[in-house]
Amino acid sequence: MVVATEKSNGRNISPNTIIELEKGDPVVFEKYWRKRGEECSIVIRGWEMMSYLGDAKNNVCWYMLPEVERSIRRLHHVVGNAVTHDRYIVVGTGATQLFQASVFALSPPHPSKPINVLAAAPFYSEYQDEISILRSGLYQWGGDAASYQKNEPYIEVITSPNNPDGIIRGPVVKSEAKGKLIHDLAYYWPHYTPITHQADHDLMLFTFSKCTGHAGSRFGWAVVKDIEVAKKMTKYVQLSSIGVSKETQTRVVKIIGVVCDGYQNFGSMESELFFEYSKRLLRERWQKLWAVIDESKVFSVAKYSKAVCNFTNDSSEPSPGFIWLKCEEGIEDCESYLLEKLKVRARGGKRFGVDSKYARISMIGTDDDFNEFLKRVSNAKKE
Amino acid sequence: MVVATEKSNGRNISPNTIIELEKGDPVVFEKYWRKRGEECSIVIRGWEMMSYLGDAKNNVCWYMLPEVERSIRRLHHVVGNAVTHDRYIVVGTGATQLFQASVFALSPPHPSKPINVLAAAPFYSEYQDEISILRSGLYQWGGDAASYQKNEPYIEVITSPNNPDGIIRGPVVKSEAKGKLIHDLAYYWPHYTPITHQADHDLMLFTFSKCTGHAGSRFGWAVVKDIEVAKKMTKYVQLSSIGVSKETQTRVVKIIGVVCDGYQNFGSMESELFFEYSKRLLRERWQKLWAVIDESKVFSVAKYSKAVCNFTNDSSEPSPGFIWLKCEEGIEDCESYLLEKLKVRARGGKRFGVDSKYARISMIGTDDDFNEFLKRVSNAKKE
Repeated sequence: MVVATEKSNGRNISPNTIIELEKGDPVVFEKYWRKRGEECSIVIRGWEMMSYLGDAKNNVCWYMLPEVERSIRRLHHVVGNAVTHDRYIVVGTGATQLFQASVFALSPPHPSKPINVLAAAPFYSEYQDEISILRSGLYQWGGDAASYQKNEPYIEVITSPNNPDGIIRGPVVKSEAKGKLIHDLAYYWPHYTPITHQADHDLMLFTFSKCTGHAGSRFGWAVVKDIEVAKKMTKYVQLSSIGVSKETQTRVVKIIGVVCDGYQNFGSMESELFFEYSKRLLRERWQKLWAVIDESKVFSVAKYSKAVCNFTNDSSEPSPGFIWLKCEEGIEDCESYLLEKLKVRARGGKRFGVDSKYARISMIGTDDDFNEFLKRVSNAKKE
Repeated sequence: MVVATEKSNGRNISPNTIIELEKGDPVVFEKYWRKRGEECSIVIRGWEMMSYLGDAKNNVCWYMLPEVERSIRRLHHVVGNAVTHDRYIVVGTGATQLFQASVFALSPPHPSKPINVLAAAPFYSEYQDEISILRSGLYQWGGDAASYQKNEPYIEVITSPNNPDGIIRGPVVKSEAKGKLIHDLAYYWPHYTPITHQADHDLMLFTFSKCTGHAGSRFGWAVVKDIEVAKKMTKYVQLSSIGVSKETQTRVVKIIGVVCDGYQNFGSMESELFFEYSKRLLRERWQKLWAVIDESKVFSVAKYSKAVCNFTNDSSEPSPGFIWLKCEEGIEDCESYLLEKLKVRARGGKRFGVDSKYARISMIGTDDDFNEFLKRVSNAKKE
């Protein structure tokens, strides 16, 4: 392992520079992979993996390399966060593509009107646009799941831990109509939240971006109970992009392999294991944040409860990938306040279906940006 | 350059084995890349390219690496098949994703009814499903462009050279209504067809799969005149998959770089240049095919005219990526005949919007499959 300095390079950020914390770009994990050095490199030769096919024997997800499927099952086995036995694996160009594949697969094929897709507010800001962009006749955005009153079939998306607020969630719709569920478990990994149980739902979505931090790879996977749903999802990915990049699949196998080897090989130092390292890193950020927020008269953040994590065998609070910031009385638009007063670009509450008093801030950006953000928050005074 | 044997390994295919020539999997080009050896390899380290971002300075296609854009422009400059000066480049997860991005971008945003998407038959078999899958309220499949009679706005897709039949095409709709055009130029490369002019259309699509043969990479690009169309296409790719795999982008830069270096570096042997090598390879297959077809009483294939290629400076016939086979009198369903009598899996004419007397056969599969196909065709006798 290459021993690199963990200190930030201390780049000076001028007070007038806008800090970009609007997206959830997971570059915080770069330093872990840098420390691991060349053992995580992949080499792809010019003639390798030129075919559309991944596995001619897979009668569901034909574009997936067999070693990708094995890696995904191994990772869930190591972490214990999801049941994969007797389940189908479908891979996509990010969980974004698979979310849309899921909605397509769960929608009735010949509806008299589009089925409603719901999520409890605050919900992930992109669901609505992803559902609405093509004005599909199969499905439509139905808004906040908590206020759904119709006696009509629906699809409810449960994001747990939730983006933006990190809360563990279950379904909330109270309709007598038949509902189908999509569990978006992008953040159900030990560095963000205690792993309290093996998730076991009909359709679960995961993403490489938020697990190991490799967002540039555009890779996600679904764990699916029903073979017909898995086949319909595969059909969607086929018509949308004829599968998933084989270069990406090669990297997924390598990176997941390195993560799992760390846990399964005798002699790994705990501090060098991916989830332990990353959890410590996020916890340190959250501790610094609490120190500043507790003193702030401008901002507040809801507290999280402790839980025992079956993976790390300790009791701890979550350390979510985002700060769900609330502006105190007198500030109506948190996003604008952050941008104008603090020169911090955040994503405002309205995008998540709630009040503009809230804004979402990335917790997984660079050290420099995070530290500068803390400095500006601690300097912010109510006028 | 590694000198590998060009001979087929002569794998014996049993006469009862089904030969899969239904897809256009471009594995024929593998042997070229194998000959080039390690100079085409890419290495990606664990910490590289973890961000969603490709180029923060690109105000259109923000997820594209700057070197990808330069490579694409360089390739068109070398080949002379398309104008890229003063045009925007948008990249996607294959031309498949970009085709859908194009249709979205060209559709009116608030239509009273969906705009018709048309293509002249025989048209690429996947357009219809890609357009219809989500029952969009923005656009719908309008069928054969040649028989379009409505006085309503439309989008016409012009595939040139055409898939399945290799014909050079222009728009065919004769409507007084306003039409928008998408030029799918996936096969407008020197190994398939003479490059007679620099294509210069509003929206042109290209794919890595059919250019260099790297279908597993899932990479395509669009050359776009209007910045607003380019931005809308980018938005579609963003909502569909948050960009394009960075591992793929890295490989595109390497492979296109090797192709272009060959032409721009002094001292390359012509026979080792990508397009010359690949053209020879396809021409040899076509010559073998003609020898068999000319004798056949069961099958026919329409002849192509010669044209001067500005790139290779010679006059030659096209050597398309597919055979568009016609069954002679008495055989009504060419696909079924091929499967039942010859154990060859092809794609039948109906999928392309025409008569089932036709079927499409891949010309870019393995040597073994192609040679076995020829053997079976030459043995086929009319009953």
